[in-house]
Amino acid sequence: MDREGQELFKAALGIVHEFLATSQDRQNKVVDFKQPAELLALMDLSLRQEGATNAEVLELCTKALHYSVHTAHPRMFNTLFSGIDMVGLSGTLMTSAANTSVYTYEMAPVFNLMEKEVLQTMRELIGWSAGSGIFSPGGSVSNMYGLMAARYRRFPDSKTKGCAHLPQLKIFTSCQAHYSVDKVAILMGLGTDNVVKVKCDHMYWAQQVRLCWQHLIPLDKMADICQAHNVWLHVDGSYGGSCLMSKTHRHLCKGIEKADSVAWNPHKGLHVPFQCSAFLTRHEDILRSMLSLRASYLFQKDKLLYDVSLDTGDMSLQCGRVNDAFKIWLMWKKNGLAWAGREIDRQLGLANYLRDRIRERDGFELVVQDQQYTNVCFWYTPPCLRGVAESDDRKQRLNKVAPKLKAGMVLAGSMMICYQPLGDLPNFMRMVTVSTSATEDDMEFILNELERIGACIQV
Amino acid sequence: MDREGQELFKAALGIVHEFLATSQDRQNKVVDFKQPAELLALMDLSLRQEGATNAEVLELCTKALHYSVHTAHPRMFNTLFSGIDMVGLSGTLMTSAANTSVYTYEMAPVFNLMEKEVLQTMRELIGWSAGSGIFSPGGSVSNMYGLMAARYRRFPDSKTKGCAHLPQLKIFTSCQAHYSVDKVAILMGLGTDNVVKVKCDHMYWAQQVRLCWQHLIPLDKMADICQAHNVWLHVDGSYGGSCLMSKTHRHLCKGIEKADSVAWNPHKGLHVPFQCSAFLTRHEDILRSMLSLRASYLFQKDKLLYDVSLDTGDMSLQCGRVNDAFKIWLMWKKNGLAWAGREIDRQLGLANYLRDRIRERDGFELVVQDQQYTNVCFWYTPPCLRGVAESDDRKQRLNKVAPKLKAGMVLAGSMMICYQPLGDLPNFMRMVTVSTSATEDDMEFILNELERIGACIQV
Repeated sequence: MDREGQELFKAALGIVHEFLATSQDRQNKVVDFKQPAELLALMDLSLRQEGATNAEVLELCTKALHYSVHTAHPRMFNTLFSGIDMVGLSGTLMTSAANTSVYTYEMAPVFNLMEKEVLQTMRELIGWSAGSGIFSPGGSVSNMYGLMAARYRRFPDSKTKGCAHLPQLKIFTSCQAHYSVDKVAILMGLGTDNVVKVKCDHMYWAQQVRLCWQHLIPLDKMADICQAHNVWLHVDGSYGGSCLMSKTHRHLCKGIEKADSVAWNPHKGLHVPFQCSAFLTRHEDILRSMLSLRASYLFQKDKLLYDVSLDTGDMSLQCGRVNDAFKIWLMWKKNGLAWAGREIDRQLGLANYLRDRIRERDGFELVVQDQQYTNVCFWYTPPCLRGVAESDDRKQRLNKVAPKLKAGMVLAGSMMICYQPLGDLPNFMRMVTVSTSATEDDMEFILNELERIGACIQV
Repeated sequence: MDREGQELFKAALGIVHEFLATSQDRQNKVVDFKQPAELLALMDLSLRQEGATNAEVLELCTKALHYSVHTAHPRMFNTLFSGIDMVGLSGTLMTSAANTSVYTYEMAPVFNLMEKEVLQTMRELIGWSAGSGIFSPGGSVSNMYGLMAARYRRFPDSKTKGCAHLPQLKIFTSCQAHYSVDKVAILMGLGTDNVVKVKCDHMYWAQQVRLCWQHLIPLDKMADICQAHNVWLHVDGSYGGSCLMSKTHRHLCKGIEKADSVAWNPHKGLHVPFQCSAFLTRHEDILRSMLSLRASYLFQKDKLLYDVSLDTGDMSLQCGRVNDAFKIWLMWKKNGLAWAGREIDRQLGLANYLRDRIRERDGFELVVQDQQYTNVCFWYTPPCLRGVAESDDRKQRLNKVAPKLKAGMVLAGSMMICYQPLGDLPNFMRMVTVSTSATEDDMEFILNELERIGACIQV
């Protein structure tokens, strides 16, 4: 091993320790935001024919981490993943050192078995005694597998003949579904016009509920409807699937066991290092049957040493595939499955706490009165808008508040929270309480900080 | 940060150091092969409600790496990636610690700019002054982007309307193309019957060449044909693309600059830790135009702080996307682009050396007399088959030799080389000389070891 590379690795480790310690200290910024031009002036990112010294690249590495978003910061609430888990990071480190692809037992004997163990555990949590699955590069791709499988099961000869001779296929999904359903419709040749967005805001919550997420529609009932109409039911549990691990809250997923397939991303609430997404199905052979091409030059069937049905290369859109199983296996082995349930309960407790504080605070309004999971959506109304009667003009002004709040918090570096519009609703803040280290005090901080930034907002 | 997690990370680092040192020592095995049942007896992989101690999981981690394939071993030739690069591993470590998704500049300001820098460098190496691109989870997905873009460019309304109203689309590819072309045809609803496999074994090499890889067909000529017929040309340079970095050998890719899109995986010959794959196109807006869905709840267009056209979430099938750019940026920054060219030249020199040794050695026969890249394909004929006249029976017996050689080397742990059939050709060994640390002595070792294992093979 070259000495300079060794020294770089050792120094990189020091940078990482410093970065993680800094990230977790509330005194420090979540992000030291710079414009692209500023970053390019601070760091020479250009690539040249000749190389650089260790000292030069280490300085760049230190800056690279410094100017990155500190996702391990306790006040990082921008995304569906947040915080740091050292067991998971240990898993990633060992995964990187092993540096292999998990398409065959031959190339990844241990990781192949770990993947099978984790997927089986996940299927059992869903409520399936058999089935199949694969780790994929994210929830969008897991959803893609579900939609592909739905088409293949109904029209198996589409594998060879394509879809030109088939009737126009349609995807039914919630009007609140993730946009990956549309992307996959483009990819599969169905077209976005053929994604039927079923309104769900009037089904059970009438006018009370202006925002609803997929899990608000009882899955159990939907599963029965799908069964009756011979429709493949794919559940996008990319975010919500981890709720299955909570004994207290898994009833929110009631009916998921009747689904044909499920997407579930443990890199969200369960803190597995990014990324870790599983596609799971109760149909045992469908992945292999749908995707196998007998590429004997890669997946030799006449191997003498082991049962090649262990190989997963024939079940995946990918050929080479990153080992995402080891890190989750390690976290579940070390922490235990019960830990994951407690972690989801803790995050839900934090969301409920925040919701209650918002209810009692002037200038704040919940979008959904009783959120069910770890996302809390709300408006903050700055002083200049208080007392202004409801009107289109007020709505348009309110719509401008969240982007200003966001810019304010990012420039201050004090916290990061996402905002979004939804249909006709003006932009609102979307808080996700998944951080490993956020506390009730941080929830109070958030509201105070929004008030501080919002006090001088003019819209 | 919890102390137990910190201690685990520290201990994991020790395990990794030991593993890498062991892996690089020729005295040690490439793999200590065990059957699944044996591994399960050696390691308790089961996941339970309660967790485990650090001591327990560290013992399992040590075993997990021990029984993994040592991809950093100098005699690991099984795959298109092999060896270890400590600069790359440093990049992976820091990437894992930063633990973010690269869909927006907001969430990954530095990595976003690094990705742009690396992609621009790659486009310049191809010969494009403008264009677009994205890192994807592997060559199959990069090929998918190319085929999607081809369809979208010709039939832009397929994005909304789907393909039911379109004429039957066809993909033309080489009979030696990667099987992902077929997978993508299934996914896109074209069907494998509509993948036209153009024979290439008679085009330029007549009967002399029984095996030819895609780069054997002059790209330059193919590009002209495609242009004349208004056909999108996608070049699968997943393996071969890195050749562009060699001043001496980049002429092998002549014509690639006329292509519409290219897949290129620097995790292969360039030792970027697995995985790192780029999709590149000279059509600047096609990715965004094809995939953008204005998912304003994720990619807010009214952000005040920066130019949201920097965001890449609208250009990708994935939503969250792993940061694969930092590690390659770091390697190219540290080592310089010229290093990559020298590395490809070194690997080619090793392949040529092996080819020459095979030519002069009894019992060995090249499949292609003059291989062009870093893969050397050959048969070893065991004593029991020498002097046996060509016949179907001999061919069937020869077909059984490579699996036996493979089993022999894996059980001995002495080296790993892939084998494969091809069309009517019996199984042959496919050596890839991409390892970071293999030498000419290792090439001699390979041939000696095959003779040793082969001496007692009966077929």
